[in-house]
Amino acid sequence: MVEALILHEDPRSGNCYKIKLTAALLGLPLATRAYDITKGETRTPEFLATVNANGRIPVLQIGEGAPENGGARFLPESNAACWYLAHDSALIPAERFAQADMLRWMFFEQYNHEPNVATLRYWLSILGEANLAEQQRALVPAKRAGGEAALALMNDHLATHDFFCGAAPTLADIALFPYTHVAEEGGFGLGDYPHILAWISRMQALPGFVPMD
Amino acid sequence: MVEALILHEDPRSGNCYKIKLTAALLGLPLATRAYDITKGETRTPEFLATVNANGRIPVLQIGEGAPENGGARFLPESNAACWYLAHDSALIPAERFAQADMLRWMFFEQYNHEPNVATLRYWLSILGEANLAEQQRALVPAKRAGGEAALALMNDHLATHDFFCGAAPTLADIALFPYTHVAEEGGFGLGDYPHILAWISRMQALPGFVPMD
Repeated sequence: MVEALILHEDPRSGNCYKIKLTAALLGLPLATRAYDITKGETRTPEFLATVNANGRIPVLQIGEGAPENGGARFLPESNAACWYLAHDSALIPAERFAQADMLRWMFFEQYNHEPNVATLRYWLSILGEANLAEQQRALVPAKRAGGEAALALMNDHLATHDFFCGAAPTLADIALFPYTHVAEEGGFGLGDYPHILAWISRMQALPGFVPMD
Repeated sequence: MVEALILHEDPRSGNCYKIKLTAALLGLPLATRAYDITKGETRTPEFLATVNANGRIPVLQIGEGAPENGGARFLPESNAACWYLAHDSALIPAERFAQADMLRWMFFEQYNHEPNVATLRYWLSILGEANLAEQQRALVPAKRAGGEAALALMNDHLATHDFFCGAAPTLADIALFPYTHVAEEGGFGLGDYPHILAWISRMQALPGFVPMD
């Protein structure tokens, strides 16, 4: 039996797009249920009790129905959801060091990249600069510097690699692609990073590639 | 041939302790090389060129010598290094959902826990409150709230689970243990989280457990 796969998402979120891109590259059918995070739709009592006690999307739902019929299981954290979908596929290298090195870039994405590159896009293009709290405004320079450092590290690596873990795409590329390719919406100039631009083109040319909504 | 394993670390870092705890629970020999991050020792040109272009520790070095003799490979990101060490061991569940769910907690640790719980410990107990920049001081309340939310989520989960992914410890427990068990150094009161305290005792009772330096 093939279990249903349902993505609980906000279509504007790059973290949600990671999961849709993984499913598309693997040819897996994926249903979606949309929430508006700016309206608190992922903080309702029902969402917290059923989908994710952490009040965040994306969450990948696997299966449907009551627990006694197998039930639904819920998997928060975008990179963990991509890992589940890509199980036993070419998007996860089988070799020990290569697999750990792929996870290295995925943890880098969540720690050094997303809190800077994605947050500035959210603040400047989705919330809007005029709506920022004073404390958010004070953090912009530090997030700008952190984001530029993350992009520079990626650019240097891509100077000698077609994809993050070698000659073929893996989940490391899928994790880093969404917020990087729209980094200009957060005020980053991708023209400074020519190897990133070339990698973006390689990603967009992959069979099965789907663009972000 | 068994390759040398060398941890480039700052002994005060919980991220480094994760790797030492993984090696200890698995009975793997692990050499260490110490750096003082407060003195910039991980930002020297040699460190950036050889060990980690991101200027951070921990880094797990696998092997030694010149590239033509197999050479050394370097793996940054604490959770990726733990993954490498625990390859094919009971610390990583083999079942598809369980494995993804373990990674879910490890990404949660890097995104929701470490930047709050570990950063406040670093600011208040290592740098010292008197030495904080004004911008750091302004962030303390947000990091306090984020850290309390992460600890509350963990406490709720541990009310019905002995370990994060079921009845036996996995890398999820190892990733979350270091900064949680010293959270009081960052001003968090663990007495509010009785299920976390019980889990800390279970971790400390594991065969092969080693304490943080």
